Amino acid sequence: MSKGGKSDQEEGEENMAAWLLGLNTLKIQPFKLPPLGPHDVRVGMKAVGICGSDVHFSKALRLADYVVKEPMVIGHECAGIIEETGSEVKDLVPGDRVALEPGISCWRCDLCKEGRYNLCPDMKFFGLPPFHGSLARQIVHPAYLCFKLPDNVSLEEGALCEPLSVAVHACRRGNISPETNVLVMGAGPIGLVTLLAARAFGAPRIVNVDVDGNRLSVAKELGADGVVQVSTNMQDIPKEVETICNVMGAKVDVSFDCAGLSKTMSTALSVTRAGGKVCLVGLGHNEMTVPLTPAAAREVDVIGVFRYKNTWPLCIELLRSGKIDVKPLITHRFGFSQKEIEEAFETSAGGGNAIKVMFNL
Amino acid sequence: MSKGGKSDQEEGEENMAAWLLGLNTLKIQPFKLPPLGPHDVRVGMKAVGICGSDVHFSKALRLADYVVKEPMVIGHECAGIIEETGSEVKDLVPGDRVALEPGISCWRCDLCKEGRYNLCPDMKFFGLPPFHGSLARQIVHPAYLCFKLPDNVSLEEGALCEPLSVAVHACRRGNISPETNVLVMGAGPIGLVTLLAARAFGAPRIVNVDVDGNRLSVAKELGADGVVQVSTNMQDIPKEVETICNVMGAKVDVSFDCAGLSKTMSTALSVTRAGGKVCLVGLGHNEMTVPLTPAAAREVDVIGVFRYKNTWPLCIELLRSGKIDVKPLITHRFGFSQKEIEEAFETSAGGGNAIKVMFNL
Amino acid sequence: MSKGGKSDQEEGEENMAAWLLGLNTLKIQPFKLPPLGPHDVRVGMKAVGICGSDVHFSKALRLADYVVKEPMVIGHECAGIIEETGSEVKDLVPGDRVALEPGISCWRCDLCKEGRYNLCPDMKFFGLPPFHGSLARQIVHPAYLCFKLPDNVSLEEGALCEPLSVAVHACRRGNISPETNVLVMGAGPIGLVTLLAARAFGAPRIVNVDVDGNRLSVAKELGADGVVQVSTNMQDIPKEVETICNVMGAKVDVSFDCAGLSKTMSTALSVTRAGGKVCLVGLGHNEMTVPLTPAAAREVDVIGVFRYKNTWPLCIELLRSGKIDVKPLITHRFGFSQKEIEEAFETSAGGGNAIKVMFNL
Amino acid sequence: MSKGGKSDQEEGEENMAAWLLGLNTLKIQPFKLPPLGPHDVRVGMKAVGICGSDVHFSKALRLADYVVKEPMVIGHECAGIIEETGSEVKDLVPGDRVALEPGISCWRCDLCKEGRYNLCPDMKFFGLPPFHGSLARQIVHPAYLCFKLPDNVSLEEGALCEPLSVAVHACRRGNISPETNVLVMGAGPIGLVTLLAARAFGAPRIVNVDVDGNRLSVAKELGADGVVQVSTNMQDIPKEVETICNVMGAKVDVSFDCAGLSKTMSTALSVTRAGGKVCLVGLGHNEMTVPLTPAAAREVDVIGVFRYKNTWPLCIELLRSGKIDVKPLITHRFGFSQKEIEEAFETSAGGGNAIKVMFNL
Repeated sequence: MSKGGKSDQEEGEENMAAWLLGLNTLKIQPFKLPPLGPHDVRVGMKAVGICGSDVHFSKALRLADYVVKEPMVIGHECAGIIEETGSEVKDLVPGDRVALEPGISCWRCDLCKEGRYNLCPDMKFFGLPPFHGSLARQIVHPAYLCFKLPDNVSLEEGALCEPLSVAVHACRRGNISPETNVLVMGAGPIGLVTLLAARAFGAPRIVNVDVDGNRLSVAKELGADGVVQVSTNMQDIPKEVETICNVMGAKVDVSFDCAGLSKTMSTALSVTRAGGKVCLVGLGHNEMTVPLTPAAAREVDVIGVFRYKNTWPLCIELLRSGKIDVKPLITHRFGFSQKEIEEAFETSAGGGNAIKVMFNL
Repeated sequence: MSKGGKSDQEEGEENMAAWLLGLNTLKIQPFKLPPLGPHDVRVGMKAVGICGSDVHFSKALRLADYVVKEPMVIGHECAGIIEETGSEVKDLVPGDRVALEPGISCWRCDLCKEGRYNLCPDMKFFGLPPFHGSLARQIVHPAYLCFKLPDNVSLEEGALCEPLSVAVHACRRGNISPETNVLVMGAGPIGLVTLLAARAFGAPRIVNVDVDGNRLSVAKELGADGVVQVSTNMQDIPKEVETICNVMGAKVDVSFDCAGLSKTMSTALSVTRAGGKVCLVGLGHNEMTVPLTPAAAREVDVIGVFRYKNTWPLCIELLRSGKIDVKPLITHRFGFSQKEIEEAFETSAGGGNAIKVMFNL
Repeated sequence: MSKGGKSDQEEGEENMAAWLLGLNTLKIQPFKLPPLGPHDVRVGMKAVGICGSDVHFSKALRLADYVVKEPMVIGHECAGIIEETGSEVKDLVPGDRVALEPGISCWRCDLCKEGRYNLCPDMKFFGLPPFHGSLARQIVHPAYLCFKLPDNVSLEEGALCEPLSVAVHACRRGNISPETNVLVMGAGPIGLVTLLAARAFGAPRIVNVDVDGNRLSVAKELGADGVVQVSTNMQDIPKEVETICNVMGAKVDVSFDCAGLSKTMSTALSVTRAGGKVCLVGLGHNEMTVPLTPAAAREVDVIGVFRYKNTWPLCIELLRSGKIDVKPLITHRFGFSQKEIEEAFETSAGGGNAIKVMFNL
Repeated sequence: MSKGGKSDQEEGEENMAAWLLGLNTLKIQPFKLPPLGPHDVRVGMKAVGICGSDVHFSKALRLADYVVKEPMVIGHECAGIIEETGSEVKDLVPGDRVALEPGISCWRCDLCKEGRYNLCPDMKFFGLPPFHGSLARQIVHPAYLCFKLPDNVSLEEGALCEPLSVAVHACRRGNISPETNVLVMGAGPIGLVTLLAARAFGAPRIVNVDVDGNRLSVAKELGADGVVQVSTNMQDIPKEVETICNVMGAKVDVSFDCAGLSKTMSTALSVTRAGGKVCLVGLGHNEMTVPLTPAAAREVDVIGVFRYKNTWPLCIELLRSGKIDVKPLITHRFGFSQKEIEEAFETSAGGGNAIKVMFNL
């Protein structure tokens, strides 16, 4: 992975990439690949999804503490075909179809060494400044972060292993099993993959909550046992908690807050049973006003969920076996042209009925 | 354990107890004991400590959702001497000195059966309405909740197993070990026993934080590696976080918030390392405004801590072996007379330099 | 639950039970019920399965350290209909169809209090001497151990919650999830329910191993991804390990040894991946000769599995939802007459194609 | 780390190392260092301990599946002083005193990525064929495996972080805390560091068992609460179990078998309480005859312990704080000459009163 603004753009004629050059300014321009190390592979990118964070960077040139200071290639939900392998690569050969895990951790810090590499402070992550992303004809990546796809899993599904990984990691953190009744706050892309993953982990009852009835219809189609449409008004929490309990018809063992707002978190904290967990997945509000103390007095734990680790093999297996079908999430497809990139980002940003927007390169 | 307001007070001439009759109205009056069941013991109470919650009930006739609706015997930190044993009691005999665990759970609900009896919804707890407490000459209690004291552990120390249990349970929930650097927000009674317990669990560095310099001096004397005096102003958090980090001189692995205020929790969430834990022990504010999302994005988990379970044997062993010395916490002692009870509650409520106020009956 | 040999058999004309009177001597005789306590229910028994341990007691009058010294009612896999409820019972009413958890633990020992009541040293268990079992027209049992069956779960299925509970507990102890490839040594009743439970917990690949080709056919029908027929010869282990690896086609994360023999355990220890687990469920050999050290050097842990705890609600939910179908396990049915009881025990003992033999009362 | 038999020995005149050339044949010969990578350091070795495995390789040219096929530098318990740092090394400078973790894992396999790097199948470990060890004037090693020593921790103590790490890892695997009574089978070097580590983790009672009274005297001096001298006769197990229980005077929660023999393991399995753990640390017998089934029926788990991971920082902190003093373990010291090396290995192999033999270079 090369750092943003630092690659030599004169040369690499063939390799084109989608650069974020400034506010709302995306351009397809040449992108020079870094040299192929002995443990690296060169991947011809074939499917790249747009994530909310990509849109956010385009519209604000920043996200949380990450600031786009120099032109940067965007994108990180991706799959492609191996074109070249480094001298030490043993498990992959050109022609292999692979899904890519986007973050390269340092493997020298305490967190990496203890198996929580998702928290590595030196993570180099596709499209998170100052590191280039993967919406490009070709990229170079460590082989150990490229996972071979079985014949019955498409490249588009491979690209969706990235958002699905967030959900899988959340389900692991929440310890979802056949004895866990699950509440999912939010029915956007992450809420929906959380629904799918919780089902695959065996959750007997899953209820989705959202303000948007259209999204809730999708949740129903994807298998939610119940849905509850809520307001954005904090004062409605008590009666909405009651409705959620009724729709669930059982104790809520684990809640996933995929929005991360004061209201969603307050609702989740209130509705989760004594001894249960609330997993905070979404990052909506920075500061929240929430009834944390009454929840703590019932030993409801708040579990942070940040990205994922070691999720690709499981995601691929869940797709291969048919336990999860992510294809219905793809609502729009675009090619890799200047015009289509602009349209794709507009579509993704526009809300409406877009869930997942996908590029085919 | 008998329910408040329901015992027949005419008869039991000999057994006197401290009744909370109304706002700030504590009276020593007769208290009729329930019958001794086959698995029960009758205990002659000898040492009873005052807890902040006792004071709170006296001053407000309520705490959280618990409301004092009828006259109630108060008190729950206690130790005494066995006077009579039920027919099936095998491990205790009259004359045994015992510390008492105050809560009787149902052993029929899911939470009891899975080993989290502290969360039992049908808990009958000393001095929590509508159940009578233990500030009485005699009480009847299940034998399995009475734990024999070794010769070198006093009855006063036995009574302090109750607050110490909160700290021990918190240390278990926080998984404190010789590799856990600990921050304790608050240096009141619970903050101080948390300091002592964290040390006994092996924590290599422990820093206490409080607004009160006097309390911090006590923390220092009890073995804190560092102390930080803070303000009550939210805007001071960033610079106080910096000071705490400097005083700690290492990463904060686990924080205990023994105050439970927006400010203490915000500080704890900010200062705890990625992958660490914040244990919420104090119950100051009901609703909190806190930076929960940035903490979750570093997978800092918020762990609820409610009372304790299975802690008495460990507390007694820690006192026996000298790993913990709770005696310095006892700052005031009173006898069991009408006048002294009033003085004792005033002393405990008054703040000042009172840490733990103890009755000797 | 009343102790064996102690109930007054003169009186109770209506209530008949199957008594084990001596070696291979089962007789239907009157069985006087103990009094109904306030938290008890009286159940009209409707379906009772025969377990290998019942047969073993009948044929040897002992099992491990448990010796039948006095006449004892036999049986513990059971379900029935509530006929009467104690004064404090709130969640059950006469007419409710219930499955019964057979063991009553003390709720006063350390193991009960920490949530491992299956290890309670004072357990009173149906049909384990000196305690009477449940193959009777009526029994009295604590209400909290009687679990209501949904309409679509039959009483026979309810009785099979008992063996299924062993498998569910094993899957919990082994932490089975959608990312656990599972090997099951043995395809008798416990091996087969382990297969079903591991599937319900999400195991992507499950291979059953047995010496009996017929049993392996049943495993295949019940959904095993592969089966391996093995010998009883220790020297065949290396080549059988190779075959198992080939049939699995993936690493073995967790093995369940449902036989508990030197050979099955040796195979399981050899075939399980570094960092995996071998759960010892079956109790065939007391002393085993096994390659424990090489397994330990790969940090393969050996996890003991004894009965179950808190499993009935999950078993019932798995049956209700159709995630598990135990009906194919019932190969023979008998009525509750002297002649049929003898036939039933012969059938169960005879091996052949009997899997589960069920009484309908 | 360079592979054995592959380094060019003609050149490097200054750097001398102890080569294992054949059976019982150790020679000090030149050892050419591999090139210093950007993340590597060159360490001037100052203290190197002899481990039983070093002696074993010398005497048998093999250990388990590891065979010495080519001349190899021996040794892996070591500490030294940084002499040169690679271009990317930030936390170390020449002159820093460091203890070295001897194994380099791949950081690409599943086990590395999930934080169990001690189980990495591609581990390159000092002095484990075909990889060279560290009994050399200089070695090159990754900086992230070199841990700075505080002023009050000597280089010899630094070298002993290696065996101490085995004990620390065992205590973590056994979850030792202030509520764990510990039995240690064996009082050789690993048994003794396990005693020290269990104490540092808070174990209230620790009993050591050995056949050698002299070793048990050392255990007593190092703080064992009790010791039991046993025979090598399997038939003595029942009475020895009784003696151990009496000496312990409490339930055995966790046993460490630091010998790994049928007898030690049988004893540990028999004496450990229901729900406890037996950690298998020693690797004496390959195949064991043990009563595994009765232990499993009490859910006594057998936990494999292999080497260590992430232990150096904790070991150094335990030495710095004085919670552990390993200095009494060093019974013999030798210089780095041909004659002394031979004497040192003879001393280490000779049994007698040698515990730890140390080279000062």
